[in-house]
Order: sequence, then structure tokens, then C-alpha cells
Amino acid sequence: MNIYVFGLGHIGLPMATWIALKGYKVIGIDINAETITQIKNGTVNIQEQLNGVHISKVAQNLIKNENLSVYTTFNRKNTVPSVFLITVGISDKENGLSDISPLINVIDTISPFLVDNDLLIIKTTMIPGTCDSTIMPRLNALKKKIHLAYCPETIIETKAFEELEKNTRILAASDDDSFQKAEKFLKCLSNSNVYKTSNFITAEMVKVVQNITRDVDICLINEISNVCSDLEIDVHELRKLVNTHPRIQLLSPGPGVGGYCLPNALKYLEDSLSDKNQLQLTRKARELNEKRPFEIVKIIKNALSKSGKNVKGSKIAIIGLAMKDYCADCRYSPAITIASELILKGAEVCAYDSLAKTSYPYQTISYEECIKNADCMLITANQFGVRFEVRQILDLLKEPAIVVDTRNTFPADPRIRLYRI
Amino acid sequence: MNIYVFGLGHIGLPMATWIALKGYKVIGIDINAETITQIKNGTVNIQEQLNGVHISKVAQNLIKNENLSVYTTFNRKNTVPSVFLITVGISDKENGLSDISPLINVIDTISPFLVDNDLLIIKTTMIPGTCDSTIMPRLNALKKKIHLAYCPETIIETKAFEELEKNTRILAASDDDSFQKAEKFLKCLSNSNVYKTSNFITAEMVKVVQNITRDVDICLINEISNVCSDLEIDVHELRKLVNTHPRIQLLSPGPGVGGYCLPNALKYLEDSLSDKNQLQLTRKARELNEKRPFEIVKIIKNALSKSGKNVKGSKIAIIGLAMKDYCADCRYSPAITIASELILKGAEVCAYDSLAKTSYPYQTISYEECIKNADCMLITANQFGVRFEVRQILDLLKEPAIVVDTRNTFPADPRIRLYRI
Repeated sequence: MNIYVFGLGHIGLPMATWIALKGYKVIGIDINAETITQIKNGTVNIQEQLNGVHISKVAQNLIKNENLSVYTTFNRKNTVPSVFLITVGISDKENGLSDISPLINVIDTISPFLVDNDLLIIKTTMIPGTCDSTIMPRLNALKKKIHLAYCPETIIETKAFEELEKNTRILAASDDDSFQKAEKFLKCLSNSNVYKTSNFITAEMVKVVQNITRDVDICLINEISNVCSDLEIDVHELRKLVNTHPRIQLLSPGPGVGGYCLPNALKYLEDSLSDKNQLQLTRKARELNEKRPFEIVKIIKNALSKSGKNVKGSKIAIIGLAMKDYCADCRYSPAITIASELILKGAEVCAYDSLAKTSYPYQTISYEECIKNADCMLITANQFGVRFEVRQILDLLKEPAIVVDTRNTFPADPRIRLYRI
Repeated sequence: MNIYVFGLGHIGLPMATWIALKGYKVIGIDINAETITQIKNGTVNIQEQLNGVHISKVAQNLIKNENLSVYTTFNRKNTVPSVFLITVGISDKENGLSDISPLINVIDTISPFLVDNDLLIIKTTMIPGTCDSTIMPRLNALKKKIHLAYCPETIIETKAFEELEKNTRILAASDDDSFQKAEKFLKCLSNSNVYKTSNFITAEMVKVVQNITRDVDICLINEISNVCSDLEIDVHELRKLVNTHPRIQLLSPGPGVGGYCLPNALKYLEDSLSDKNQLQLTRKARELNEKRPFEIVKIIKNALSKSGKNVKGSKIAIIGLAMKDYCADCRYSPAITIASELILKGAEVCAYDSLAKTSYPYQTISYEECIKNADCMLITANQFGVRFEVRQILDLLKEPAIVVDTRNTFPADPRIRLYRI
């Protein structure tokens, strides 16, 4: 039995390699030729490690041993019933609408080649209702016994291998037989629980709700953080104490919400609703989360102002461009928005991130170069190769040394004007 | 050493009895003469049980054995350094502002009688900053060695004794010596952890943040519940599945937020802030939570409408007037708001709650009388003495039997038109 994995990005590649490591023959397909080249060359810029080995190396070894093969186009190897895992994401249209064509394209591409007892498992975060309204009719039209299952992926970036192994699975399927087939396959991959849902839309909704809940939770702690700043309360002390309550679990404050999943989840849900007046809390959270990077710019402005400086003409050193610590993913990263806004306000921006390969003109090749003569250092993500040493910072930054820390990572020191959010 | 407990309400009475059971001589003071009479007569309408014994009985036994005495006025028994536990709450002024005079009154009442090494422990949920701005100056003016500590109470109504025993404690004090004295006393009461905060305002903020977080969490699940209704998804199935995620814990949907603590917490925080533009998410949650009972009325209206009936002229039977299951507390209860709104819309409202003593004109003395000939039964809280039996409901309700269940408690049955939120 072959396992075809469609989409070899942040979800697809870890999944393809993980399944290949379980002993299956895996065929990975991604229409992006550069992605395929990077996998073959071992230059994948996804920050995942398996027992200390980078995913690039893991994938290369699997290719060498012929457990994994990767292509830009789909060619069915044989007519033995197979598993088709679909991880391609919904994309953004320029008009701000969600575009499910990448998913439809996969279905349309494989449809002519599907055989009885093939199993399709969709992992993509969906607009609730899509399996029933869009996928099932296409498969039904084939007049074959195709098993459709939906199993949303919940792994967190940078911990993919760990979470593939341990996260529980939500599973919906077109009928009992399909459910059993999908469940059996998932149980071969890991021992974690599989939870059956009544129908596709419930499973689709579970994933979207998990994402919007995180979005609201992040907004809440950032709002609390702002209030704490005003009242001169240490938000990190507060958070730890609040979380001693058995029924409450506040997240950590930060510079905003990045990555592809959370910023898009609400849009998917809105697309499935007729009454746009709903979702007022979650929409408020989204709106505030989108404003968060601009609040960070204000904090920088106030910090500079207290030292008699303006944003205009100041050099701001941004440490960490990725959307979270020790990560290479800059999609929707608040650090990028902050950089753009600072440049717009006339600041000279430099940024250092040892993993973010996407070249922005303001990126420097070393941490030292980035912070040299900076009027303010902004920490937006922890990153490999950066150690915050007070002596070095005092030597390199202009006086007074101003640090705005959005990750609660900088050591307190009386010689540094530290602003922690 | 005597323990004086000020305020003998939902927090104060369980605390006074619990401490008396630990072997201390406890003197309880409440300026409300009716409260004192009820405690003495064993007719307290607070729904707490200790090993199956109602708090009324527990208190009466303690009074009989002279471990507890209760008064409407404060008289210091002797000049041995004592503990003064203050549980009186901040009240609402008619203009919607918070009124801390009950707390100030306690401080002013006891101040002339305080002696060196007395320990004051405030348990009240506070406007952050109050200990420093208002309490400390008053105590400092006495020129005595008075120990002030703040230890916010986190027990949940109906589980007071259990949570007094097991909940961790947040503790702030005026100095190290005061902290140690307060910690030692708290450790004599239970083995659960005591967490020290850097200052009073952090401890005050912890409690307020715990409450507003719950307020936001409740708003979120109710919003999700509405969306689920639209998409015909079972919100209770969804919730269970969403909560299989290790980083997410959705609460249960319900008819709205009641009780004294949560609806007021945001106001306290707003009072401590100069910038009223802050707290946009939490204010949105509060605003939506206040609208929640009116959404329930809409659900009733739609349910009736589908059976060709109007709210006007229909009999609506409300089961459970208290703010939560198996509770007697009707303060800010959404059921009361729903009843008022339904009456305003011309409905005939009956309500049954075996514990809620506050007499509303629409209360009935039996469940059967309440639901007899009702066009719709609304379940707002589970209550002792009520068992939802389909046969009985079909016999007593008008046809078709319509049930709106806000507590996920009613059994599904094809003969009942059940609307679950």
C-alpha cells in the first residue's frame, strides 16, 4: 500500500517523513518545484527536528533509502488501494476571501486515477461544511467505492514530530466502513486516541474552534499585559499566580499572532455563516490581534521618547523575524508588520534571525551587526545563535541602552532600560 | 487567639464555620440583622454542605458549642493579638459605580480597638490598588504595629468547604513579618500552597483577572454555541472534542453569567485605570454576556414561532431561578432577566426553584404547578427536587411540548421539541 501525501509544507513534510519512518512507502507531491528541489537538496527551511536531526536530513535519508519519493506532479504507482493524505492549505485571495482551489485541484487531479477502496484523508483546516458541500459530491460522481475521512491536523510548528506521535486525533468519515479503514490506518501510525465525530462538519468545526479559541486567549493576555504595564504590575508574575487557579490557564503575552493557522481561522468560520453579525467576541479578538504589532511600535516610541529620542531617525534592531521562538516561519509574523511600520515612521530598521531565509532588505547576517549603534533593541522571538549578554549590549547599543522585550527573555539589569510586555 | 470574621454571606459564613471547625474561637459580625437571625435560627439560604450537613446546621452546632458566636456589631473580646478576616464585598452604587464603603466601614469600626500584632486579612475582591491607596494609610495612621495581608478568596459557590480546604492561596502583605504571620495562620487552616506576591496590587489584580478571564471564557463558548445552532452542530459534542486538545479548555454554554463576582470584576479593573479605551476584548465579553439572557428569549420566541405561537399570551415555565445549578444565589441571575423580559413581551411566566427564597410574584411552590399548561419549558438551572421525566412533561405541557434547555440536562426524546444551547 502506497501513501500519497499532497502538500509538503509545514504540515505535509513532517507528516510524509514521519509516515515513511513507520515503514510505509510514501510519495510526496507538491506543485511548487522549489519545495521539491529543497527537499532533494536538503535545504528545507522548516524548523523541525527528529531526535536532534533536522527534517532536511531526515527527508534526504528517506529518499536515499527509497522510503520517500517526492514529485511536482501526481503519478499513481499502481492500482492497489492506497491512502491519499491531503495537507494543502486554503489560500488567501487578493480580495481577502478564502480560496479552496488548492484542495479542489488535488481532488480533481487524483479523481481520474482513484480505484475502489482508496482512502482519502483530508488534514487541512477547512471552512466548516466543505467536505459535505464540495468534496463528497465530487467523489460520489466517480461512482466508485472511495473512502473519505477528515482528520484535522493539530501539531504545533517546531514540535511536529513530537506531536504527530502524541496528539489525539479527531476523525470523521463518510460511512462506518470508511471510518474503520481510516481509524485502522491512524492507529498504525500512533497509539494516541482517535475520537469519532457525528459528521464531517463537527470535525471541521472542532479544528476551527480550537484555532479561534487560541486567538481569543492570546488577545486576552495581551490586553491584560497592557493593563499591567499601566498599573506597573509584572504581567509574568501575575500570569503565574493567576494560573495557580485550577480552572484558568492564561497564555504568555507577546508581540501578536503569527503563522498561517490562527489569523485565518475566523475567516473560515465566517465563510460558513449567513448571519455576519455573529462572532462578535472572536472578531473583536482578531481585530485587536491585528493591531497588536502597532501597539508594540507605540511601546518603542514611548521608550525612545523617555530618552529624548524619536522613532524617526532612530536605529531599531529587531531580534527574531519568525512568528515564534526558534522557528523559521515568517508568515503573518508580527515582527514583519512591526518592521514595516517602523520604516514607515522613518526609523532605520535592522533585523536578525538565523533561520528566517526570506530576504528582507533590512536583514543583517549577524546579531552583532544588527544591534551595533541601535537606539533600541526589540526582541520579537528567541532564536538560535542569539544570547542576550548585558556587557555586549552595553558596548554595542547607543546610550542609554533600551530593550523592548516581548518574549520575557531578557535578563533584568539596572544598566538597561528594559520594557517588558 | 480570637478570629473575627466580617461579613457572613456566601464567603464569610463558610469561612467562619470552617475556621471554627479547625478549633479556633470565631466571632462573626454582619451588620445585617436578618443574616444574624437566620444563622441563629438555622434558616440560612446559602447552598453549602459539609459532609452532607447543610451549612445552617453546621453553624448552629458551632454556636451551641461556643466555637462560633455571631453579632450585628463588633465588640472586641480581649486585647490578645487577634486575626481579623474581612470578607465584606464592594457594593454597587445606583450610578453603576463601585462602592468600597462597606470595607472602609469595617476598617474604621475596628481601628480604635486594634492592638499591636493584630493581623488583618482581607479576602474581598478589590479594585486593584485599594490596599495601598486606602487601607494602608488608615492603618499607618494608627501608629501601631498592625499586620495587613491580602488573600483573595477563590472558592466557588456550592463547593465552599471543599475549596476552602484545597484551593491554593495568593498572599500579599505589608512587610515580611506580616507575610510570615499571615502565612503561618493560613497554613494552620489548610495544607494547600500559599503563593507570595511582590505587592498588594499584584494580588488584587490576580483575583480580578481570574474573574474577567472566566467572563471572557463564558462569552466565547456561548458565541460558539450560537454558531453551532446555526450550523446544526451539537455544541456539547463539539466542546468535548475541542477539549481533547492539550492547550484548550472550553467551558459549557449556558444562559448567561450570574452571581456577584464575575459581572462586577471588570468594573473594578476599569475603576483602577485612567485610559478607558483599554480592555476592549473584556468589555466586549461583558457587553455580550449582558445580552445573553435576551438571546435566550429570542430562542424561546423562535421555538414558539415554529409551533405557530407567540411569546405574547404563552405560558413559559422557567425551571431554576438561581445563577447556577443546585444553588440558592439569585444575584445577577440570567433567569431573572429572562423572566422580566418575557413578562415585558406579554408572556405569562411561572418559575420554580426549590432553593431560591427571594420571592418573585411568578414563583410557584411546585414544579408540577409551574409546568402545567405551559407552552414552553425553559431550563435555566438544575435544581433539587426536579427530575425531567418525558411522560410527565407530555402530560402537563401544552402540545407540542417545547423545551429550551440551557444546561444540557434534558433527555432527548422524539416526542419533545427540544432546543439545546
